[in-house]
Amino acid sequence: MGDKPIWEQIGASFVQHYYHIFDTDRTQLGSLYIDASCLTWEGQQCQGKTAIVDKLSSLPFQKIQHSITSQDHQPTPDSCILSMVVGQLKADEDPIIGFHQIFILKNINDAWVCTNDMFRLALHNYG
Amino acid sequence: MGDKPIWEQIGASFVQHYYHIFDTDRTQLGSLYIDASCLTWEGQQCQGKTAIVDKLSSLPFQKIQHSITSQDHQPTPDSCILSMVVGQLKADEDPIIGFHQIFILKNINDAWVCTNDMFRLALHNYG
Repeated sequence: MGDKPIWEQIGASFVQHYYHIFDTDRTQLGSLYIDASCLTWEGQQCQGKTAIVDKLSSLPFQKIQHSITSQDHQPTPDSCILSMVVGQLKADEDPIIGFHQIFILKNINDAWVCTNDMFRLALHNYG
Repeated sequence: MGDKPIWEQIGASFVQHYYHIFDTDRTQLGSLYIDASCLTWEGQQCQGKTAIVDKLSSLPFQKIQHSITSQDHQPTPDSCILSMVVGQLKADEDPIIGFHQIFILKNINDAWVCTNDMFRLALHNYG
């Protein structure tokens, strides 16, 4: 990774870390958000670390596994990092389904946290 | 739209305006970007209004039509707006194909401009 821009390294590390926690124990995701963080999950909005973790924890599956197809990262003018992930997920015994998710990462007190998170299943977008 | 948050109104207006120009004459998109703007198009990065318009203008189709399936908008901690669009497009006589695109909008000198833009075809993400 040494020759990649620092924002790409940080974005890729965050993405790997995020899905690792999500797939292992998503009730532990709170440390990646702050109280100002916004999540839009399939069009439903919630704000704040607690509300976001409650939302993610209450999703109706026990086991989940994410697999990343592509990820793109950019620096923003406000020194944040914008990441877009396209991938597939398998929840419990349901069929594999595509998803896309985006994050804005901001450095606060020497840690990168997620201030903005949007998620959509690819379900609704077949031709 | 009166009861929607202002950032959602601005995001939705931008998205409508962007695809209208894209589908009408994409060489005119320069006014929506600034010199610091970043575009990642199917994994290819370019920066700056001129490079972005050159990239979009050189895409190998004459006619294109975007149709939006869903759009989500959020305010960011730095007073920007994050927008995620999922949709379908038809380029020339090719089959309809899904896409997803995200924008960060920033207010500079009383105008909303796009500082960050990422685009991916849904092509690569079927199960």
